[in-house]
Order: sequence, then structure tokens, then C-alpha cells
Amino acid sequence: MIISSEKEAISVQTSETTRFEDGLTLECGETIAPLDVAYCTYGRLSPAKDNAILICHALTGDQYVAGRNPVTGKDGWWSRLVGPGKPVDTNQYFVICANVLGGCMGSTGPKSLKADGAPWGTSFPPITVRDMVRAQARLITHLGIDRLFAVIGGSMGGMQAIEWVVTYPDRVFSALPIATSPYHSAQNIAFNEVSRQAISADPDWHDGRYWAHNVVPARGLAVARMVAHITYVSEKAMTRKFGRRTRRNPAASQEGAQLPAAFFSEIFEVESYLRHQGSSFVQRFDANSYLTITRALDYFDLAADHDGDLSKAFKNCTTRFCVVSFSSDWLFPTSQSRALARALNQAGVNVSFVEIESDRGHDAFLLDEPDFERTIRGFLEGARLHYVAAGAPHAG
Amino acid sequence: MIISSEKEAISVQTSETTRFEDGLTLECGETIAPLDVAYCTYGRLSPAKDNAILICHALTGDQYVAGRNPVTGKDGWWSRLVGPGKPVDTNQYFVICANVLGGCMGSTGPKSLKADGAPWGTSFPPITVRDMVRAQARLITHLGIDRLFAVIGGSMGGMQAIEWVVTYPDRVFSALPIATSPYHSAQNIAFNEVSRQAISADPDWHDGRYWAHNVVPARGLAVARMVAHITYVSEKAMTRKFGRRTRRNPAASQEGAQLPAAFFSEIFEVESYLRHQGSSFVQRFDANSYLTITRALDYFDLAADHDGDLSKAFKNCTTRFCVVSFSSDWLFPTSQSRALARALNQAGVNVSFVEIESDRGHDAFLLDEPDFERTIRGFLEGARLHYVAAGAPHAG
Repeated sequence: MIISSEKEAISVQTSETTRFEDGLTLECGETIAPLDVAYCTYGRLSPAKDNAILICHALTGDQYVAGRNPVTGKDGWWSRLVGPGKPVDTNQYFVICANVLGGCMGSTGPKSLKADGAPWGTSFPPITVRDMVRAQARLITHLGIDRLFAVIGGSMGGMQAIEWVVTYPDRVFSALPIATSPYHSAQNIAFNEVSRQAISADPDWHDGRYWAHNVVPARGLAVARMVAHITYVSEKAMTRKFGRRTRRNPAASQEGAQLPAAFFSEIFEVESYLRHQGSSFVQRFDANSYLTITRALDYFDLAADHDGDLSKAFKNCTTRFCVVSFSSDWLFPTSQSRALARALNQAGVNVSFVEIESDRGHDAFLLDEPDFERTIRGFLEGARLHYVAAGAPHAG
Repeated sequence: MIISSEKEAISVQTSETTRFEDGLTLECGETIAPLDVAYCTYGRLSPAKDNAILICHALTGDQYVAGRNPVTGKDGWWSRLVGPGKPVDTNQYFVICANVLGGCMGSTGPKSLKADGAPWGTSFPPITVRDMVRAQARLITHLGIDRLFAVIGGSMGGMQAIEWVVTYPDRVFSALPIATSPYHSAQNIAFNEVSRQAISADPDWHDGRYWAHNVVPARGLAVARMVAHITYVSEKAMTRKFGRRTRRNPAASQEGAQLPAAFFSEIFEVESYLRHQGSSFVQRFDANSYLTITRALDYFDLAADHDGDLSKAFKNCTTRFCVVSFSSDWLFPTSQSRALARALNQAGVNVSFVEIESDRGHDAFLLDEPDFERTIRGFLEGARLHYVAAGAPHAG
């Protein structure tokens, strides 16, 4: 009974939106105004405003990190990690998660309306991970928070966590970049480019003006999601989940009859699953956002901004780092996390690096991985001891 | 000078086509008639007809294994391996390579005309790797060859090599399955499904009747090729070849001006390369063929036809095997070749298994890999000794 009532206790999460009328001038030089930042909060901000943790979401994530997501009706994407008594303990911390700039869940993005009343669409300027972080910083300042106790994120969220430290070194006490990389690799870019080409090949794409035709490039966006989904899972996990099992093809009921061998009218379970992933994604995500954000990912290369020397990005950095990778992640392999940890070490930064043994691929950071949860909990507890010893800001 | 004249000596390869009016009854139960098999030959068939080697091509390959390909104007796809004095020595052997059933280079496939004068298109029945092999066997019989000295193939060609032994155990003296697998994995199927969805999302797809509209689903087929191409290359090879280098975006000449940061109007070299791969592929390949052949790949699972026990497929098999994998091939990883070698061993088959160290991924079997070439040459020389000792067929 307790379990059941606990389940019912998960309430629908509400999201707030703060508008910055003066907008944000982007790295590319253009200004987006106004700037909306949609966000959720969990727990309570202490009077000293020194217990805030910012969580950054991944490519297709959103601000609903815990509680029930009102759009999908499902639990928040990191409900496992964030909540009372959980590794990111909302009894202790005030947790903030904002929809990224360029997203489609309330923060300003290609779906947002310009001054002339039309959506930005493909005229939305190119953005970078740093632009995303600068938008978040506006929110953090607006909330009266000088310094974050921690910035945590997985995948693209991890890139933001790193970028936070680089852009605002004094505003981040600790950072946890998870299943991420200090740069997007050629293979990462290649997969993103396939996704973008799939979207623009859709007849409902209309050169990005699909909103004017009252359609969405659903098939192209679904293909984009399908290819991305393959990269999130290890070959082993996919074999375990689907193997070569087949199921009846719903579309083959008429034509199937003419084939003597029933096998040929069936589809593989993995196909059925991918199609479902693709079509359900289309319900909740904007194609132009997908294009904008994948571009931002591709641009990400911290070392390039520092003469090719990643360690220079962290000069005089006092943030405590915990870098986490997963052994079977082939999208952001351990070698990339190790390169980050090495650069941090070289810069004299306090960094711990943990590779979690898991055979579930990149998605492991969203799944039930006890070692991972223990790592997060342990690092935050340790960091808190140092935080208190060092004297939190406004502690008086 | 010698090198230059050797280059000029490569003549345009001619392809022949044999028609079997009675056609072929497929595993699905349907009959395709007539059956055309287009093929190239190299070297001379010995009077005893005992020196024939069949080479099987991969998904998007063709019969132009050596010499100049008249369609692409380039050298044949295995010119490196096949020719006078080369590892597959056409001074010794009569080499045959046929376009696969379901292909689009002269053998019967979706592009071929039915009796009513219209292309098969999507009404082309589902085929299997075994069907491809049975079509080849018709050709081999037609050429008067009872037994092949060797069947060699990489990737899908390797599947055919294995299937040849299973379907015609008495007709294959030796087999070299290279960079292949005894089954298509869930991840393989998933990538193929993405490709198929991309093709059918193209506005010029017209439910597979694009030929009636005088168009081809070029964008969808290009996306299919792009995603496949990523799987052919290792992450390391892609990084070495492209890294994060950018180049001027040819399409951004007008809009680029409005962006102060030139970076944002550039594209990554890997994107440019993939787009080129995609668009050039469209010139030479038929979309319905791509759908038909990827399906055949997905169906491939030798163990499933033998109660899930792969070794049973090779009961009483006397063919000599050389199984070759490449260490960085993540599309057909070494573990799958090892599973094949293990099953062959268990069945008491004479098998050698070689994993070639290479960081170039699946494509390595088409590239300059000296260890690989030595392996092929050595195995064929050794097999020849046994062949002569055992007495080739019709040797009298």
C-alpha cells in the first residue's frame, strides 16, 4: 500500500517562465529578444541562497527532471536521481532545471514568435552550448543566486556543466559532467548530419516553414529520432532487448496473405520499437529545435577556444569536478571523458573520474545504475563538506 | 613510366547477362521469371573447369570486381585483390562475379520489367541470401562448373559465401567469409530500418512507384547511404580523416554574409563528405533494390534454420574455411566471425580464423590492408595444394 500511495503522491510538475525583455546577444552576434527561460524548481532555496543545484538536460530532454511531466504524463527524466532523500536530495538542495535556449518546451527557440508574430523557424540564429549556458545564467541571477553549489548534466547537459565552469568559474562550486565530452567528434557530427538531412528530405518540411502549412515533418523527424536512438544503446543491450524476434506487421494484414511464408509479413521487434520511438517523439518535439540544437552540439569544442589546449580552459579553476562515463557508451566513449579528466588534472583542478561498468550504452545515465547513483550521492556529500568548510557565499 | 602504362592498361570491363526463362522459385514461394544474371569473368576457365572462384559482392557492390567499372568509371571494387599475380590470381583462376538477385546492375531486381512491361518495383517479392545464392548457382551450372575452387565475399558477400557451403556443400572446395556474420544483429536491423524509413519519407518515393513519376527518391536514398556509410567506418578512422575541420558551405554564400562569425556559415568536412557519398550513390543505385536487399540481410540467420544451433548447418561439411574479421569493425564485429569459426570447429570443419588488426572499421576489407591480402593469398595457395592432392573434379 505504501508503494502505491507513494506512486500516487507524484504530482504533476509545474513549469515557470521568466522573460528577459532585453534578450540575449548570441555568440554569432545576433540578438534574440525577448528571451524566455522556462524552468522547474524542486526543494527550497535557503535564505542564504547557497544550496542551489542546476541540472542541465540533454538534446531532447526538458525542464521536467522530476515529478510528473505534464506533456508526456510520465515521470521526470531523472526522477530516479532527484527528490527527497535521493542522490540529489531536494530536502537539502534547491534544484533548478531549465529548458535550453533553442528548445521547444517554453524557453525561446525556433517555435517562439518573433516581434512580427511569426515563429522564428529557420531564421532562428545559430546558437552554441555557451549561449545555452548564458541564458541559464540570466535565470540564476534572476533567482538571486550568486553561486551554484553544483551543476550536473548528462550528454549535452554535461557539455553545459563543463561550459558553466569555463564561462562562470566563480559561480560553480562543483560540476558533474556525465556521459559527455569536451568536443563533438566527427562520428557524432556525422550522425547529426544524417538526422538533419532526414528532416529536410521530408515533404512536409517546406524549407522549415512547415508551421505556415499547418504540418510537421513527422516522417523525417521520426527518422532523425530513430538513428539517434540507435546511438544511445549498446549493441549488447539491443540484442538483449530485441534480439531477432519478430512480430506481426500491422500494415501487412492484406498483402501478407499472398505470401506463403508468414515470416516475410512480419517485422522485427527492434523495427517496431524504433518506429514507435520515432512517432512518439514527433508529438513532443519541434523539428527546427532539433536542427538548432544538434548544430549547437556539433559546434562544441572547448579546446578550440583555447589554442587547442583543453587544460587552458580550466586555468585557475577552483571548481570541484566529478567526471562520469559508462563503459559501453559508444556515442560519448570513456576516452573522451578521460581526455576531460586529464585536462582538468593538468590544470591542477580537483577532479575525480569514474567509469561506471554498464553494458547499456549511452542511455545508462538515465537508467537504474546503482553504482552511478552511489557516485553522485557520494560526490555531492563530499563536496558539501568542503563547501561548508570553505564557507558558502552569503553564509553570514 | 611503367606505373603509368600499367594504369592505362586497365580496360573497361564488360558484363554479360544470362537469361533463365523458367525463372527462380524463391523461398517465399513466389516465382520470378525470367531470371537474368549479369556477371563479369576474369582469367580463363581451365579445360577441366576446375579453377573457378566465385566472388560475391556486398550490399551496394556489383559484378565489376576488377577492371574499370563502366558505370562509375572507377576501378573495380576489389581490383586490389583480383588480377594477374594478385592474391586472387587471374593467371591461375577463372574468377566470376555476378550482380545479386534483387540488384540493379543487370540481374533481375525491382527495376527489371515484368511480363506486363512495368517494373517489378515494390511488387518484387521478398528475397533471402539463399535466393541470391541459388540464382548464382544457376549461372555456375550454366557455365558448366560442377564445383567451385573457392567462394569469397565480404560483408553481405560473406553471408553468401557461407550460404553457398550450407546450400551446396559438394560444390564448394573452400570458402572465405570476410567481415561478415552468420546472422544480422538487432543493431544491424535497426540501422537498415532507419535507411528504409528515410527512403519512404521522401516525397519522390510515391509508395515505391517513383519510376511511374519519372523521379527517384534521391534525398531519402542519400540519407540511407549516409547512415550506412557511418557504420562502415570506425570512429578513429573518421576522426583521422575529417576531425572537426570545416569548409565553406556552398549554399551559404548569400545568408552567410549576415553572420558576423564566419564559423557559423561553414559546414564540417565530414558533413560535406557524407552529402557527397549520398548524392553520388543515388546516381547508381535503385531505391527499391536497396529496400529488397536490406530486407534479405535482415532475414539472414543461419542458426535459426538449424534449431538455433549454428554448427548443425555445417554437418559433414568438407569445405575448407578461412574466416576473416577486422578488429575495429563495429558493424560485423569480430565476435560474430568468432561465433562462426566456433560453430565450424564444433562441426569438425577445417577452419582457420584470422582477425586483422586495423583501425579502419568495416570498410577495411575494401582498403589497402597488407595483412589481409597476405591472408587471402596464403589461404588460397594452401587450399590449392590440398585441392590438387585431393584431385579436382573432372581432373582426368
